[in-house]
Amino acid sequence: MAYKLYYFNIRGLAEPIRYLLKYGGTEFEDVRIERENWPDLKDTMPMKQMPVLEVDGKKYFQSIAISRFLATNYGLAGKDAFESMEIDSVVDTFNDMRIKITQAFLAPEAEKEEAMKKVLEESVPLYLMKLNSLAEENGGYLACNRLTWADIYVAAMSGLITFISKGQDLFETYPAIKKVIENVEANENIKKWIAERPVTAY
Amino acid sequence: MAYKLYYFNIRGLAEPIRYLLKYGGTEFEDVRIERENWPDLKDTMPMKQMPVLEVDGKKYFQSIAISRFLATNYGLAGKDAFESMEIDSVVDTFNDMRIKITQAFLAPEAEKEEAMKKVLEESVPLYLMKLNSLAEENGGYLACNRLTWADIYVAAMSGLITFISKGQDLFETYPAIKKVIENVEANENIKKWIAERPVTAY
Repeated sequence: MAYKLYYFNIRGLAEPIRYLLKYGGTEFEDVRIERENWPDLKDTMPMKQMPVLEVDGKKYFQSIAISRFLATNYGLAGKDAFESMEIDSVVDTFNDMRIKITQAFLAPEAEKEEAMKKVLEESVPLYLMKLNSLAEENGGYLACNRLTWADIYVAAMSGLITFISKGQDLFETYPAIKKVIENVEANENIKKWIAERPVTAY
Repeated sequence: MAYKLYYFNIRGLAEPIRYLLKYGGTEFEDVRIERENWPDLKDTMPMKQMPVLEVDGKKYFQSIAISRFLATNYGLAGKDAFESMEIDSVVDTFNDMRIKITQAFLAPEAEKEEAMKKVLEESVPLYLMKLNSLAEENGGYLACNRLTWADIYVAAMSGLITFISKGQDLFETYPAIKKVIENVEANENIKKWIAERPVTAY
């Protein structure tokens, strides 16, 4: 099958997809669209949004849906419906946290500092404490006592999270999550990707 | 297995789970927690949030993860990884729309009207046009040319969406989505549930 990934020239929401494709050793075309060309290309995307993964000419959208699809193909998804629910709940929890931080990040300039302070002090610790204890309970993984796409998703998104959180490394005080990220980054294929990927701010 | 669903006494984010449990004919305890009792109960929930589905004493969280779990058990999920991605992308797209409307709904009083106008005029039509054409292409369903949990999810959430959109029926001008909702509501078990469920604002 021929894979083509469309996104901006950033890690952002596409990075979990790239990590998974690399993990699986799947060849793909990493199409990076410059901002100035996006208005012309927008209408060629199913939801006028990216990331989009094209598989044999058919375009699929929604980054988490695409990640789960790849994870299923690579044996990184749940082995039964209970395991899948466990993995999915970790990913959706992490994504809830990302959405909250993003809202503060995108708040009007006058409200931004206050909004970011509030989210970093009130919401984020609750999410990270939970994820940290899950990682402790699951032997260094976020779910199912083994490497799943939840680990890869969180590791690949950690850079974006750090960037939008005023550059703070939110994971610094959560050693079990730190370890999850390090484990993912120690994978040979992913380590190689991190070394060779285009350098972008987030 | 013993199922217990914890949520507030509203349809809200738990209604897709209730629809699915009813569709599957699964007995469950529909625990509805009054707002005044929530502070005392909050710490008993994995993420201090609801809905939570307890299965044989173990608590699971994240409404979409729970819905996918039930759908898998009832044969309403994808038959392969491609189908699952298709269904998941519809659900996540609808959820993106819900989050955008919710942000406007929860905006400070002074900004609320403008924010809601913007989201209803600019974002919502894009989402609903896409979902409407998917429903047209898939023979009256949102994905896979048959009833899946994407249809049930959207139908069960439509009341919440109407409520937070200043009471506007957003689906009125999208006949294919309307039909999806009607199809779900015509299911015998769900029809019975709609007739007997507690009457709440949303």
